Amino acid sequence: MSLLLRQVVFEGETVDLLIAAGLIQKIAPSPADFSADEVLEGGGLTVVPGLYNGHTHAAMSLMRGYADDMELQSWLTTKIWPLEEKLTEELVYHGTRLACLEMIKSGTVFFNDMYWHFHGTARAVEEMGLRAALSAVIIDLNDPGRLAEQIAVNRDLYQASRDFSDRLQFVLGPHAIYTVSRAGLEWVRDFAAEHDLMIHLHLSETEPEVKNSLTAFGCRPVSYLAQLGLLSERLVAAHAVWLDRDEIALLEKNQVRVINNPTSNMKLAVGKTFAYRHFVEHGVLVGLGTDGCASNNNLDMFETMKISALLQKFAVHDPTVQPASAVWRMATAAGAAIFGLRGGEIGVGRPADLLLIDRERPEMAPGHNLISDLVYSASGAVVDTTIVAGRVLMHQRRVPGEKEIIAEARAAVRQLLR
Amino acid sequence: MSLLLRQVVFEGETVDLLIAAGLIQKIAPSPADFSADEVLEGGGLTVVPGLYNGHTHAAMSLMRGYADDMELQSWLTTKIWPLEEKLTEELVYHGTRLACLEMIKSGTVFFNDMYWHFHGTARAVEEMGLRAALSAVIIDLNDPGRLAEQIAVNRDLYQASRDFSDRLQFVLGPHAIYTVSRAGLEWVRDFAAEHDLMIHLHLSETEPEVKNSLTAFGCRPVSYLAQLGLLSERLVAAHAVWLDRDEIALLEKNQVRVINNPTSNMKLAVGKTFAYRHFVEHGVLVGLGTDGCASNNNLDMFETMKISALLQKFAVHDPTVQPASAVWRMATAAGAAIFGLRGGEIGVGRPADLLLIDRERPEMAPGHNLISDLVYSASGAVVDTTIVAGRVLMHQRRVPGEKEIIAEARAAVRQLLR
Repeated sequence: MSLLLRQVVFEGETVDLLIAAGLIQKIAPSPADFSADEVLEGGGLTVVPGLYNGHTHAAMSLMRGYADDMELQSWLTTKIWPLEEKLTEELVYHGTRLACLEMIKSGTVFFNDMYWHFHGTARAVEEMGLRAALSAVIIDLNDPGRLAEQIAVNRDLYQASRDFSDRLQFVLGPHAIYTVSRAGLEWVRDFAAEHDLMIHLHLSETEPEVKNSLTAFGCRPVSYLAQLGLLSERLVAAHAVWLDRDEIALLEKNQVRVINNPTSNMKLAVGKTFAYRHFVEHGVLVGLGTDGCASNNNLDMFETMKISALLQKFAVHDPTVQPASAVWRMATAAGAAIFGLRGGEIGVGRPADLLLIDRERPEMAPGHNLISDLVYSASGAVVDTTIVAGRVLMHQRRVPGEKEIIAEARAAVRQLLR
Repeated sequence: MSLLLRQVVFEGETVDLLIAAGLIQKIAPSPADFSADEVLEGGGLTVVPGLYNGHTHAAMSLMRGYADDMELQSWLTTKIWPLEEKLTEELVYHGTRLACLEMIKSGTVFFNDMYWHFHGTARAVEEMGLRAALSAVIIDLNDPGRLAEQIAVNRDLYQASRDFSDRLQFVLGPHAIYTVSRAGLEWVRDFAAEHDLMIHLHLSETEPEVKNSLTAFGCRPVSYLAQLGLLSERLVAAHAVWLDRDEIALLEKNQVRVINNPTSNMKLAVGKTFAYRHFVEHGVLVGLGTDGCASNNNLDMFETMKISALLQKFAVHDPTVQPASAVWRMATAAGAAIFGLRGGEIGVGRPADLLLIDRERPEMAPGHNLISDLVYSASGAVVDTTIVAGRVLMHQRRVPGEKEIIAEARAAVRQLLR
């Protein structure tokens, strides 16, 4: 299947764009003499790369607005965890479909997920057409029996993942250093190396995690991971806010990738700002994530880009920090590179993970600077068309089956609350 | 002209809502036996009060994305001020129309504005149908000649405002204590009292303003205003971030109204968080504003609500601060009350300043809590219909003349940049 995007604006010029085998094959001034199986009339919409969401728990869309404005520990123990215990693969499937729908409608082409009932998530992503890196939650709470179970599950998932489409990437998901035993982390390290897998871990999100690490392991979290040999370019660390400069240097030295989740950090009041400047000075590859809907409460990466840039400026008292172009890169090319993907930039040979943006909207006018408008003024609603791996998932803001997906997610929640 | 909103959801119940003379006249379970000149089929959309934007410079929509990520002083002197010098009434008219269009499309029914070329703004608001409190910028820089001019202008504007529709409120707009002389502020105080006008002032937005006040007047800004007799329920103070607790107590004692602009404060890196908790403890009436598009860069009050609540939680390291219901109230009932309006709540006898919200969208599903979803997940794109003073300004997201307004704003910018 080849696809021709006719008459789209790319870097100020009106071009035609030929896509085949999921890749951009040709770009030339419009009208070009390209032919294709399918033609999409761009009508002067602007083409930009799609967005890469570096940290999510997609099916938590079912918990959007279920519990807000609460102290972290009681929020988890009285609200989130009791509901999660009642989840089934089917409910996770419906929650993930809702999340995928929201992501498609707000211009996200890829997400890095960690959640329960893996097959529910995987099935939803396969159907909905997004790219994703998916991990099951590994938590053993220092119980060897539980670890043995998790290892068996993850071995099976790895085998099963070989039948997934190439949009899906199986990842190992040790939850955090305070929920996974040393033996568990060592197994993750070895299995990842053996099968060339990424590792998705929550790292230093809160101060108690650091204090606990000092007590339990006699060192800060990053040093502990270094001792275990977990630090490498396979490791994607979500949050990474409670770090000192030595830890940041260690992450850089070992080419660990880091995902900042500013909205979630603010909503949960984690008490510290992501040290963006230090990460950049150290040359760490930094991406951007929304986190799950229970702590954000949406999956709109446009909003997350703005909040990221605002929080940086505010926290370090300098309006020049993290300019629009930098945060745009975090959400596109850097986000893709972290997961070994070549998307996030537009060019011949690059994956056709693209958005068509409608600039004929008041919030995109007068249009002095496209990237500024995308980062500081847009919401996901400016996206007209979302294309992933050369397939049109949304056009003119319509996603097939939208009403049904929402209705089924509502039914899933009724079942969950029963 | 009467208007019947048929089959809308209000507080969980499907009702019909009868509007006449700009007010809500009747509410009853649907179908009610109301008749009206015009019927709008709600089709199960949810009715909520419209949003009140407490601090804007509407025509700065022309400068959206023109200059970002700059140090405050060079941003003003090399970018914003040189462009503002070239503004004309006609350009301000086109910029304000664009701003009004954006506000209508994102659910704002009222805004409190301060800007140059007053008549350009007023004409745009009259045409676009929003409510507004409008002030010209009073800046005399201690020049008695300039003050005399400004007084003459404002006397004329006050006279002219008597012919405005009752959606418009004329307000005096002394820019700030560091740009208006003591004599200027005294004139404002007396003219406002004589003619029962509100006063719109920037107060303690940055630390230099406080330092300058200590040097120039020997006291902090709020004490200076107290000495001049400016503190009263007429005064609407925008920003008010660099205040100590004594100043907050003084504002409360004198019933001064305060507008928090969290997005602008973050983007410009003003270095301090609005002391929301102290204002609430002191019982100060607090509203919410976007500020102008040069420092935000949009006018979407939904986004501003979220950023407000997030920033409070993050700054005081407590996720329970400014819950969704509190920030919703700031943007609705409190915002209206500050300007002596009875909107912001839905009830018989209240102004028909209403929104119809589409909850059949992924970011509004599953829908555990409407107010949480509006504050933490929605953008302005969830608004289907905007009604101001009983008149439908947008329905099914269509505003008459939208394309032309955007095109004319673009043409205005080309002229401005020539």
